[in-house]
Amino acid sequence: MKKPLILVTNDDGITAPGINALVDVAKSLGEVVIVAPNSPQSGMGHAITIHDPIRLHKAKVFKGIEAFECSGTPVDCVKLAKNVILKGRVPDLCVSGINHGSNASINIIYSGTLSAAMEASLEGIPSIGFSLLDYAYNADFNPCKPYLKKIMKYVLEKGMMEGSLLNVNIPKLTAEEIKGIRVCRQAEARWVEEFMENEDPRGQKIYWLTGKFENEDNGEDTDVWALENGYISVVPSMHDLTNYKAIPHLVALSSSSLLKQ
Amino acid sequence: MKKPLILVTNDDGITAPGINALVDVAKSLGEVVIVAPNSPQSGMGHAITIHDPIRLHKAKVFKGIEAFECSGTPVDCVKLAKNVILKGRVPDLCVSGINHGSNASINIIYSGTLSAAMEASLEGIPSIGFSLLDYAYNADFNPCKPYLKKIMKYVLEKGMMEGSLLNVNIPKLTAEEIKGIRVCRQAEARWVEEFMENEDPRGQKIYWLTGKFENEDNGEDTDVWALENGYISVVPSMHDLTNYKAIPHLVALSSSSLLKQ
Repeated sequence: MKKPLILVTNDDGITAPGINALVDVAKSLGEVVIVAPNSPQSGMGHAITIHDPIRLHKAKVFKGIEAFECSGTPVDCVKLAKNVILKGRVPDLCVSGINHGSNASINIIYSGTLSAAMEASLEGIPSIGFSLLDYAYNADFNPCKPYLKKIMKYVLEKGMMEGSLLNVNIPKLTAEEIKGIRVCRQAEARWVEEFMENEDPRGQKIYWLTGKFENEDNGEDTDVWALENGYISVVPSMHDLTNYKAIPHLVALSSSSLLKQ
Repeated sequence: MKKPLILVTNDDGITAPGINALVDVAKSLGEVVIVAPNSPQSGMGHAITIHDPIRLHKAKVFKGIEAFECSGTPVDCVKLAKNVILKGRVPDLCVSGINHGSNASINIIYSGTLSAAMEASLEGIPSIGFSLLDYAYNADFNPCKPYLKKIMKYVLEKGMMEGSLLNVNIPKLTAEEIKGIRVCRQAEARWVEEFMENEDPRGQKIYWLTGKFENEDNGEDTDVWALENGYISVVPSMHDLTNYKAIPHLVALSSSSLLKQ
């Protein structure tokens, strides 16, 4: 059997330990090509680079593995991989991460890691975003590796429902403490922001975004619940943002030309 | 009756003609506060500024209307409006745009205009993103104004289903040609990219993102169909990205600890 082709990317940048851990698992399952940002791109969401040129260079960061670093966003990386680097070869799987920090619940919409996976899913490539609930640079990515392999193998074998990607979050636990995997929905949580006001060296006022994550969704079928209870959470996510349930509430808005009324 | 408070933002920047047109309509319906980026932020998606400070200044661009320009992304603008500028006053409505160019179909995930509206919806603020299918700087925003007013009034009166926002796109037509408003779903379309390869003045290779929009979704209930047939499209959108239909396909992935197997 031909080895599957696995595209690896992330948003913490090509030198982050998290992508190293992901490459370790990916290379045991197939041929790996890496295209990742040349600098941290956390919080970039689904941003793309329109007004500036993008630079792309070969990177010698992973022995024996083809790797490229890109000046753009995580979504740019996936677009460049498909159109410039792989030129028509379609990956069997795209994995993004492992992110240093949670992308559970509403974090998915701010996350470069998950946006890269979503971009791949738009191209029909089965894709998964992985995140560990540990912001530390030297976080321990080893305990989750067997689970990552299980999830990646599952997707390689079964494929993915069209238009879907998986948002996988991993609790900060030892191998003994991880209870297993749960398939979940996205918890209805949000960030409560506070801005830190400060002054730059020239006395000009500046603001730093800060805040805390607040979850008031107690459903035991949510990713936040799974993570708080020792499980790895797997949420199937999608790019069709239509709120179908809201359509009937809006019918009165439909109209003919206002000129004719 | 107290005048409603309307927060106005965009992604083309505070000096773009589109936001001017939106302010024109908004001020006929309530008290307006503007917080918009100080430079174009198209394609920024749901990006937030984490690694840099954000600057915020009063802007004297709209006579008699409180306005602020911000160095951050459209989503940052909404966060700053809520937490720093309005300090506890909650807008009755947030409107974003009018974007110069379409945000129909999959464009919603790349769009700063719609991401700003989504951010407001996360805060429980009824919100609408408006876009005109004309990229020109001097696009004619007048024909759509009566429709914008109708849609904004509707939302001010009826509110919005929780977690929803409206994605409104306007065809490039005269007032006589616009047939009316249709409530739709997001068409299943995508961008087919090509990168323009070029060299910078120092002979280094650079890439520019380019591409064309391809729609293979012929549904007459889609936003693309509505726009091609002379209607203003209104899609209720949401931030819960869970693909509920995919959950049953993944049950086999659920597991207990791999150590115990």
